[in-house]
Formats: sequence, C-alpha cells, structure tokens
Amino acid sequence: MSSERIIQVERDILGKNDRLAADNRARFQADEVLAFNLVSSPGAGKTSLLVRAVSGLKDSFPIGVIEGDQQTSNDAERIRATGVAAIQVNTGKGCHLDAAMVGQAYDRLPWLNGGLLFIENVGNLVCPAAFDLGEACKIVVFSTTEGEDKPLKYPDMFAASSLMLINKIDLAPVLDFDLARTVEYARRVNPGIEVMTVSARTGEGFPALYAWIRRRWAKAKQAEMAAQG
Amino acid sequence: MSSERIIQVERDILGKNDRLAADNRARFQADEVLAFNLVSSPGAGKTSLLVRAVSGLKDSFPIGVIEGDQQTSNDAERIRATGVAAIQVNTGKGCHLDAAMVGQAYDRLPWLNGGLLFIENVGNLVCPAAFDLGEACKIVVFSTTEGEDKPLKYPDMFAASSLMLINKIDLAPVLDFDLARTVEYARRVNPGIEVMTVSARTGEGFPALYAWIRRRWAKAKQAEMAAQG
Repeated sequence: MSSERIIQVERDILGKNDRLAADNRARFQADEVLAFNLVSSPGAGKTSLLVRAVSGLKDSFPIGVIEGDQQTSNDAERIRATGVAAIQVNTGKGCHLDAAMVGQAYDRLPWLNGGLLFIENVGNLVCPAAFDLGEACKIVVFSTTEGEDKPLKYPDMFAASSLMLINKIDLAPVLDFDLARTVEYARRVNPGIEVMTVSARTGEGFPALYAWIRRRWAKAKQAEMAAQG
Repeated sequence: MSSERIIQVERDILGKNDRLAADNRARFQADEVLAFNLVSSPGAGKTSLLVRAVSGLKDSFPIGVIEGDQQTSNDAERIRATGVAAIQVNTGKGCHLDAAMVGQAYDRLPWLNGGLLFIENVGNLVCPAAFDLGEACKIVVFSTTEGEDKPLKYPDMFAASSLMLINKIDLAPVLDFDLARTVEYARRVNPGIEVMTVSARTGEGFPALYAWIRRRWAKAKQAEMAAQG
C-alpha cells in the first residue's frame, strides 16, 4: 500500500474521531461536567492516583470514571471500591481510547451534572496523544522511575498535556531522579505545561492537586456563565 | 470510514511488514546474526540494560544496536560511548519500529557476521507486539516499578515474547513488588515465557543473562549446521 494511501486513512480515522470528540465535548458542557483525560506509560500509577483522588473529592462533586485497558476490568473494580461509579472499556488489540468508546461509556454512567469525569487512557505515551476524547484537558502522569529524558523522547504527549503530574515522588530519594531537569525537558516541548509532584502511595501533593482541580472547575463554571450572558 | 475498510488497511500494513520482516530474517541468517527485539514501557530501562549488556558481551561477539525512539538520538549515543556501533531510528509520530526501518538501519551497521544484533523498540507495551522485525525473538523488559498486573493488562506483548527480563530488581525491597505474582500473571498469558531478574544499575543477574544469550547463540548455530547437512 502506498504511504499516501496510509496517510489518507489516518486522516479519515482522526477526522471521524474529532467529530465524535466534539459531540462528547458538547454533551459534557451541557451536563456541566469537567472531563480530564489521564495519559501515561503503563505502570506510572494512574489508577492508584485516581483511587486516592476520587476518594478525596467524592464528597464535593458527583464523579464518574471511565477506565481504558487492553484487557481486564481490575481498574474499574478498584475505583468502584471507593463508592464512585466506573465503566471499564477494553480496547483488545487497540492502543488508545477513542471518542466513540468514551461516548458509549459516558451513556452508562449516572448523570454527573456539575461534576467531574476522569478518563484513564490505555497506558501508552504515544498513540493517545493524537486522539481527542472531548476532554477539557489532558493530564500526563509521569513517574520518577521512568527517567528524566522521556518528555524529549515522547514529545507529542507532553506537548498535548496541560498538566504533568510527577508521581511516585516518595521514591525520588532512592532513585537518581532529577526533578529540575525533568521539568526543563517538559517545558522545552511545552512551555506552558503546569507541573505538580505527588505520591499516590503516601498522599503527598494531593491537597495541591485538589486545589488545581477546583480552580479548573470554577474557571469552567465562570466561562459558562459568561457565555450564557 | 467503515470498520471493514480499517481492518483491511491494517491487514495490508501488517502483510507488507511481514514480507519485509521475512527479508530481514533471511539476511540475519545469511550473516549468521542473532537478532533480539527489546520491547517495554517507556522508562523500563532498556537502554541502561543494553549499555551494560553490550559492554559485557562485546569482547565475545561482533555487536550492533538499532535504537528506536520518537525523537532524540540520546540512546544511540549512549551505546556508541561503549564502543559498539549503533544506529538511531526516529519514528516521529510513529509508535513502533517496522521491518522496513530495521532493514534500512541494518544496511548502515558494520558487518556483524557471527554476532548479535539488539533492536531497541519504541517504549510502548501495545503496538510493537504486532510488528515482526525479523528478530529471532522478542524480549520484554519489565520494571519492578510498573506493578504486577501489567502482563494481564497488556497480554499481547507478553504472549509475543520469549523472555521476560524483570529489571530494577534492586528496587524491589522498597516497593511492594511481588515477583511470584508477576511471573504467575505472565505465564497465564504465555505458559512458555522464560523469566530472569536483573538490575541494569547494579549488574545483578547479568551473568545469567549472558549465559542465556550464549545458549540461544549456540542453538542457532547448531540449527544452521543441521540445515546445511
């Protein structure tokens, strides 16, 4: 097959996804739901982080979670154990969630009016960067065990994300982890990226993360009221 | 675009890759080169592991390395610092190496007659599983920091690999890492997978890895002599 034909097929797939993502975004706005798309390598700790975050936020907001994985429903079960609604999407051979999967999973969640939707993507620092799901923003979860150079090696994902959450910060002292260098590399590919350090194991940094989420929520609310005049 | 058309395009891409992988495999056999395809999540430690392994093996074998990354040539430079030849392949938006890239990079390496070729794939536990590069076998590098459940969540990669190298074993005591459970999960998706533990940082486990490589090399040599009658 010619490379021109492959590029055309890729464009068709992404174009269709973008249309469905716009539908999702319109639904989230109509429901006043703020949606975050969490992306990372496998094992960066997205689920542990979400388990802690939804536990800390569930008394303040209606919350729903969409969990993406090639196989297993382990992650949705871990979220549900906190009392928060979660839908598992298995992508099979697929390497990312797409907007159609998220739209269908959202149908199966309870109404989250005025609340938060966390979408945990398949663990993959490459492919999910190209697929808009209708989220307000992407959050890239990055673990101290992965090495400082990853923002340079996988630049698309760091360029596409609004916030870099550096997880497993409790392990930094036993690793040769250089926080300043990681932040410098991330800002080289995305000068505007915000950065926070957390530990899903110890809870370090979570109050600041909650404050960040509340600010995003208040800002979205304000924008919406301004739009309504 | 219909899902039937997408599936047909995927089949075309994989079919073309398989033909080029067969060409690579024939070339490696003609050159008596044993090729390994190293796959893992970003940050599992493939490059650190290779830097140590090629240093330990370079006096016994001609060695070449092909390094895949979306961006940067950091990894090839790290390999070259050991005195071993390395070619960097940047995949750009791409999430895996393909057989065409490997064939072209192999042209640029010195003749490795009777030696070893290590191909370090893009860090991604999903997409590289489907792309044969012409290697003798895939080695999945898995880090103790990633969590025991990954073989169940990303089963294709563990099913496609002959050896699971559990890296960062020096960190196991500070993590809640359960080695037995990881091995059990990996063998649930691939009963025949071999398992070794290593630390690219401390060198723990490398003598056993070298012995494994020498056994594979001797076996390939034997098979070839048998084929020649």
